[in-house]
Amino acid sequence: MKLKKINHKDIKDILLKRSNHSAISLQQIDETVERIMQSVRLEGDRAVYQYIKQLDGVELESFKVLEQEIEEAFNQVDASSVQILSEAKENILSYHKLQKEKSWYTNDQQGIWLGQQVTPIERVGVYVPGGKASYPSTVLMSILPAKVAGVEKVVVTTPVQSNGSIHPTTLVAASMAGADEILKIGGAHGIATLAYGTETIEPVHKIVGPGNAYVARAKKYVFGDVGIDLIAGPSEVCILADESANPQFVAADLLAQAEHDELASAIAVTTSEQLGSEIQVEIKRQMKHRNRQEILNESITNHGCIYIVDGLTSAFKFVNELAPEHLELQVENPFEQLEKVKHAGAIFLGNYSPEPLGDYFAGPNHTLPTNGTAKFSSPLGVYDFMKKSSVIYYDEKALNQVRQQVERFAESEGLDAHKESVRIRFEQ
Amino acid sequence: MKLKKINHKDIKDILLKRSNHSAISLQQIDETVERIMQSVRLEGDRAVYQYIKQLDGVELESFKVLEQEIEEAFNQVDASSVQILSEAKENILSYHKLQKEKSWYTNDQQGIWLGQQVTPIERVGVYVPGGKASYPSTVLMSILPAKVAGVEKVVVTTPVQSNGSIHPTTLVAASMAGADEILKIGGAHGIATLAYGTETIEPVHKIVGPGNAYVARAKKYVFGDVGIDLIAGPSEVCILADESANPQFVAADLLAQAEHDELASAIAVTTSEQLGSEIQVEIKRQMKHRNRQEILNESITNHGCIYIVDGLTSAFKFVNELAPEHLELQVENPFEQLEKVKHAGAIFLGNYSPEPLGDYFAGPNHTLPTNGTAKFSSPLGVYDFMKKSSVIYYDEKALNQVRQQVERFAESEGLDAHKESVRIRFEQ
Repeated sequence: MKLKKINHKDIKDILLKRSNHSAISLQQIDETVERIMQSVRLEGDRAVYQYIKQLDGVELESFKVLEQEIEEAFNQVDASSVQILSEAKENILSYHKLQKEKSWYTNDQQGIWLGQQVTPIERVGVYVPGGKASYPSTVLMSILPAKVAGVEKVVVTTPVQSNGSIHPTTLVAASMAGADEILKIGGAHGIATLAYGTETIEPVHKIVGPGNAYVARAKKYVFGDVGIDLIAGPSEVCILADESANPQFVAADLLAQAEHDELASAIAVTTSEQLGSEIQVEIKRQMKHRNRQEILNESITNHGCIYIVDGLTSAFKFVNELAPEHLELQVENPFEQLEKVKHAGAIFLGNYSPEPLGDYFAGPNHTLPTNGTAKFSSPLGVYDFMKKSSVIYYDEKALNQVRQQVERFAESEGLDAHKESVRIRFEQ
Repeated sequence: MKLKKINHKDIKDILLKRSNHSAISLQQIDETVERIMQSVRLEGDRAVYQYIKQLDGVELESFKVLEQEIEEAFNQVDASSVQILSEAKENILSYHKLQKEKSWYTNDQQGIWLGQQVTPIERVGVYVPGGKASYPSTVLMSILPAKVAGVEKVVVTTPVQSNGSIHPTTLVAASMAGADEILKIGGAHGIATLAYGTETIEPVHKIVGPGNAYVARAKKYVFGDVGIDLIAGPSEVCILADESANPQFVAADLLAQAEHDELASAIAVTTSEQLGSEIQVEIKRQMKHRNRQEILNESITNHGCIYIVDGLTSAFKFVNELAPEHLELQVENPFEQLEKVKHAGAIFLGNYSPEPLGDYFAGPNHTLPTNGTAKFSSPLGVYDFMKKSSVIYYDEKALNQVRQQVERFAESEGLDAHKESVRIRFEQ
């Protein structure tokens, strides 16, 4: 892993260079996505079955998962896994319940009520990546916040395996989380089915969940017709460590991030040159014992780095420019440093809060803003599945008191029917 | 205005047909937008000045509004207008302050802290439509929530007038709301400048504000690179009225909506056939006295309708399928009906809360989800200018207590470096 001393002034430039690696051409993907979206809109189920055959290589009789298939999945997954999923579910529910917003009203002024009514989205689609692998944690993290919000219908869609079924752990997790319908449709055709519906599927109002480049572009395509959550890129961690940190822990956490995929970024920033060197040595040592050698090698070589900075001020400047998906603060008194963090998806404090704890178990959501988007977006949460309506009530007297101002305002914007709608109420 | 009796069962079909009117081809717009976006990204200021010349017909020396121009604008706007803007500002601030979320932390379990840190977005861009007209209300409604959120830098951009300046009322409103920088750049080149920056403009992290089709598609283009608010379509009102309603008021409010533009929708739904006919007569009568005859005619003829339904249950079914931008409840005991509203941008209660009151003055935001998007999105608000970070802290003992579960979970997802990052902490 590279080790680089950097200067206060370099920070912006370094990060600018880093961000370039994501700028690949998307034109070809977009053309394919557009073709798929239009086919599904025009031809419905027929197009969906055809894409499943063409792209997933499976001829399905029905893309809807049957009750019986879910029962079989429970038989295939061992009881201890179900038990752990169940504990994770409880932790996720506890945390997310604290996010639920309530409607509010205020009547500070005589004859006036103002408020904000908060209501759940009615139907939501959850995309679960898959195929050979199963990510039950993603299933729980996507469905449970929707259920806490009060969403009536959660439709899960995930790519079908070559044997025509869905990975049993995915089915078990989806069922435990309360999915109302599960579809065997992956890729852009999965997103199209959720957004526009078919003869047999009612369209949803919002789609969440991570996926490959086709899924990401398909989500962007449907954005506006339905709501979507953030568009996820490769995963990242930034570990801010001072001389109190343990290089073994830092190295292990960097490798945990790097094993996700070749594009994952594992970055440390430290105020201690000695710690930096020790992390470097540890990475080398620990890496040999890990399974995913190739992925680790690529990720660490191309996107990993240990940056040495001249103090905590520079370190936080670096962190806030990076706006990492995951931030670990392995520093003395991490709670005191917390307010210096301006932009990060999730913040892990101290030496015993490694990022994988948050991936699976602690409760906060693991679907987080990547690639600097923490500067303007949030973890997936209950707030993604609710929306607000403003509420305005004036009685006659209250309206009468402000009518001149409203009429003048309407006049100044040149809208006489706006003015009239107030005036007419006081005509006689 | 058409009057239609509709049946409980027809509601979905009717609304399906209505929604088709927005399905126009966007390919040509998209190609133009993409060209503009790429030019500004590649050539920066030079491209921006060239598009201002080409599309706005003005050769500018600088697209930044100078302090002096703002002072001059204050001289041009009369004092009573400034006074009304100032009252509106106070109302908007009071309401939006109630939306501001606070960070929270919980430590229900021994050795565990979980939380959600809420922080403002750092730099925000506000697009203000313009040219000849001025919409000071939009200026206030877009900038003030950002300021309440704590945004450090708000950059406003708006099309330049043919004389090289910006409408003085826009400048006055922007200055009063606390804009930190004002640019004379409209259209897609304005969005590109905000999203990607130039040699002289620092890019922002999120862009809000309504605009024409080019602006809307440009916002969709930059979505993901920066955050955007909802993409606004033509404005709509739905007035739910029972036999207690006043047909004059209902008609006036429908016309207020219809005068916005030819594509605006003014719809009434009523349980009283008699009221329906009376509204129809009133529309005809009042319309003659209004200024914007052509717009009113087109809007009312093509998109206006009075629907008669068989009771309040059907009426609310209609409303919730429509998910209107503005909903007026001119019914007896409107507060009691409020919870039947599942989807609407803003809800106006009773006979003395006409929609123009909300446009300018009452305080809640007037940038609202249109075209059914209230099913999944919210009014512009302080929450659009803040974002969340999850916070996770476990001490050694707490991590030790859950380590087996986390390790098993990592194992089940096939990620051994994840497992190791927990295990290594308890090695000796």
